[in-house]
Amino acid sequence: MAKGLTKRSVDYSQWYNELVIKADLAENSAVRGCMVIKPYGYAIWEKMQQQLDKMFKETGHVNAYFPLFIPKSFFSKEADHVEGFAKECAVVTHYRLMNDPDGKGVVVDPDAKLEEELIVRPTSETIIWNTYKNWIQSYRDLPIKCNQWANVVRWEMRTRLFLRTAEFLWQEGHTAHATKEEAIEETETMIKVYAEFAEKYLGVPVVQGVKTANERFAGALETYTIEALMQDGKALQSGTSHFLGQNFAKAFDVKFASKEGTEDYVWATSWGVSTRLMGALIMAHSDDYGLVLPPKLAPIQVAIVPIYKSAEDLAKISEKVDVIVKNLKDRGISVKFDDSDNRKPGWKFAQYELQGVPVRLAVGPRDIENNTIEVARRDNLTKEVVSIENIDAYVADLLEKIQDGIFQKALDFRSEMTTQVESYDEFKKVLKEKGGFILAHWDGTSETEQKIKDETKATIRCIPLEGDKTPGKCIVTGNPSKQMVLFAKAY
Amino acid sequence: MAKGLTKRSVDYSQWYNELVIKADLAENSAVRGCMVIKPYGYAIWEKMQQQLDKMFKETGHVNAYFPLFIPKSFFSKEADHVEGFAKECAVVTHYRLMNDPDGKGVVVDPDAKLEEELIVRPTSETIIWNTYKNWIQSYRDLPIKCNQWANVVRWEMRTRLFLRTAEFLWQEGHTAHATKEEAIEETETMIKVYAEFAEKYLGVPVVQGVKTANERFAGALETYTIEALMQDGKALQSGTSHFLGQNFAKAFDVKFASKEGTEDYVWATSWGVSTRLMGALIMAHSDDYGLVLPPKLAPIQVAIVPIYKSAEDLAKISEKVDVIVKNLKDRGISVKFDDSDNRKPGWKFAQYELQGVPVRLAVGPRDIENNTIEVARRDNLTKEVVSIENIDAYVADLLEKIQDGIFQKALDFRSEMTTQVESYDEFKKVLKEKGGFILAHWDGTSETEQKIKDETKATIRCIPLEGDKTPGKCIVTGNPSKQMVLFAKAY
Repeated sequence: MAKGLTKRSVDYSQWYNELVIKADLAENSAVRGCMVIKPYGYAIWEKMQQQLDKMFKETGHVNAYFPLFIPKSFFSKEADHVEGFAKECAVVTHYRLMNDPDGKGVVVDPDAKLEEELIVRPTSETIIWNTYKNWIQSYRDLPIKCNQWANVVRWEMRTRLFLRTAEFLWQEGHTAHATKEEAIEETETMIKVYAEFAEKYLGVPVVQGVKTANERFAGALETYTIEALMQDGKALQSGTSHFLGQNFAKAFDVKFASKEGTEDYVWATSWGVSTRLMGALIMAHSDDYGLVLPPKLAPIQVAIVPIYKSAEDLAKISEKVDVIVKNLKDRGISVKFDDSDNRKPGWKFAQYELQGVPVRLAVGPRDIENNTIEVARRDNLTKEVVSIENIDAYVADLLEKIQDGIFQKALDFRSEMTTQVESYDEFKKVLKEKGGFILAHWDGTSETEQKIKDETKATIRCIPLEGDKTPGKCIVTGNPSKQMVLFAKAY
Repeated sequence: MAKGLTKRSVDYSQWYNELVIKADLAENSAVRGCMVIKPYGYAIWEKMQQQLDKMFKETGHVNAYFPLFIPKSFFSKEADHVEGFAKECAVVTHYRLMNDPDGKGVVVDPDAKLEEELIVRPTSETIIWNTYKNWIQSYRDLPIKCNQWANVVRWEMRTRLFLRTAEFLWQEGHTAHATKEEAIEETETMIKVYAEFAEKYLGVPVVQGVKTANERFAGALETYTIEALMQDGKALQSGTSHFLGQNFAKAFDVKFASKEGTEDYVWATSWGVSTRLMGALIMAHSDDYGLVLPPKLAPIQVAIVPIYKSAEDLAKISEKVDVIVKNLKDRGISVKFDDSDNRKPGWKFAQYELQGVPVRLAVGPRDIENNTIEVARRDNLTKEVVSIENIDAYVADLLEKIQDGIFQKALDFRSEMTTQVESYDEFKKVLKEKGGFILAHWDGTSETEQKIKDETKATIRCIPLEGDKTPGKCIVTGNPSKQMVLFAKAY
């Protein structure tokens, strides 16, 4: 295992916290709850952004940018939204500092008080719908399908790097439609985009479903979610897509003239994923040696380490490696030839292991003689010595295998950790002894949901869209249940 | 000219304000001084970002992300910086809202007052150097070359879309070096990167130079700038790169152990460009018909408008156009075939003109017969009918010509609008009657600089790095001058 890294089996939570720091992904800042995303962590986030952005554009969305600040009064306009969002947030009350008359520091200028306080956006529905009001007059102006990449702030009391921070980075899509059907279709399209991204890029299998009323986004009529399972058997909500009905259109008086000349409120959706995905990525795949990154999101896909004693050895190795580097780059593979002389090969091996580089190549003098190269896989920690001929094709193929393998491993783990239970006793037993996802019948009431949560800390992660839809009887009340729902303890 | 757009000759300022709105680039929001960047404007900004980001990475930089908030006390640590930046800024004093006990709105919870106020970053030197302190122990940790894409807030009282807004988007590079020489080299490298970007991508010629002490960034020992000339003869500072010496290292106690075992403070630079570049882009090239975009930054490089009466006509045209679209896309050219039937061709022509699409193609039934196509250039408003054969190669070549032509036109304008003067009377006369850049000798004192500013509103834009370096005599005091400096009225 990596030097000084707590084992997952000893303390999973501690392992995560240490790994984020040791792998140089992020750290806490001087501002409570706000993180610094370090270059290596940010490079992974950038790869996520690029892929998501591409998928958003392919599904007809455009990017835009809306203000960081929201007038306080906007939060009072949508009744449910105010309950959910206008609470723990950063409030700007003044717009000027002045020299402290009594010292050498600065103090808030009491004369520079804002007439109306501004809230640092916790999410942008209100300011965006206030803007859309001016953009929409007729059906010809619809649909509007905007996305925004931005920072948001929610004043969380207990924070953890990536998983829950006061400031985080995210994207938020906000769309406006002429019909209910079109808005629902958009909501469903976007949760599918998120699921595809999670599975094909993050390598994390997800359950798609809808949230219960209790767990819905504040102001939504329906919240779709993707739920992922972490290695400790806890669920991580990884992306949500909300059908907002006409709630925000009504709150901000956004009407449009239809083709038929009637007037109606506009239908809305919003959807988002955040730097929380970094947490999902780390917790789903990594091990006691460090990060395990899926090749598609790895900033460095291949690291090449020369093993040499003399300058002559290095020259011979470099000559061979330069060709490999060129061939890999021509295939669009990101590669780092680490010929720095201030660290030993063993140190470099451990470092690339810690940082989750999917493939490590090592070349020594004997390899040059034999025309071979050592290939090490990060995902399963296997090594083999192969011919240096066509190594670029070999590596390209291996990266695909690793991407698939990482997903398959996570999928197998999830299958193993998903239990269908028939009684509340069994539910509690599984939750206590095994954890993971639990499929169980539920009577559809908030009361039962709350009782289970209070007694076990497990929540309904979602009502799955796919899978067994057989009706049954609630494990708690025995009342009729339409289908089994997915329970878990969650981050 | 575009419908309802004020002519530049009538009111340049009004023309700019209207054009930003009419071309759908941005608009004012409900929050004073904060703008909404609309999808078309944001698409241009994204193109700028992509190119700049590429250039930053090619010069060895990595991206990272630092907190939005800065503890108030941080601003007191660097004496000059506090004077320049800790004044007009957004101050967060509370972290919670609560339901108004007397009504249905929300009010600030008086119990949720922060112990120390947080400032929404106006620039990030302080929080970043506070972070770098933990990253730097020895020369092995240097250099650090981070860039951040972020939003910043400066509480401007008089705002104009893109040119001066309370919140704006920008990038800020922050680098740390072991030696003074290396930091100066970095500062100079980055101003050259900005100059190259401005000239090759924005198509805007710039003068590179250093700022006088009065105009320096708060906390810098030297500020390098690129200065562009707008069509109204005013200058626009378009990017700056600062050599910060050891000021921030001293303020945040950031020392490193050198190779020789001595301990020294770290050397710093910072550099940034912002959405202000959008203002430069618009004001440098556009005309009374609307935007003129350089092809390299145009979200749509080619628009194709079919001219038809019957569905048969359209079918024939589409058949030909589909091939053209494919061929253009294969060349990496962004193209829009606008076969929407709710607008007439004339309306579409005007719209693409207003939005500055560099090349517009029009195809009618006669073109199909003759195997021709009409090509319209946005930059010089010329049209010609050419053969449809190899039109993709023709257009690719034309886009390059337009890119070069736009730059050359701006360069010619600047040459014409740059005047060398020998006396203060001549200076004032040129400033009043012609405007533009004025090259004049200056004695190097802040007093003379201030006197000229007070009397004429012209400021020293920079001490140019290139050009005539002959010494002379100050136009105001007659005292010795090392070289002519660049004056102008500025945005």
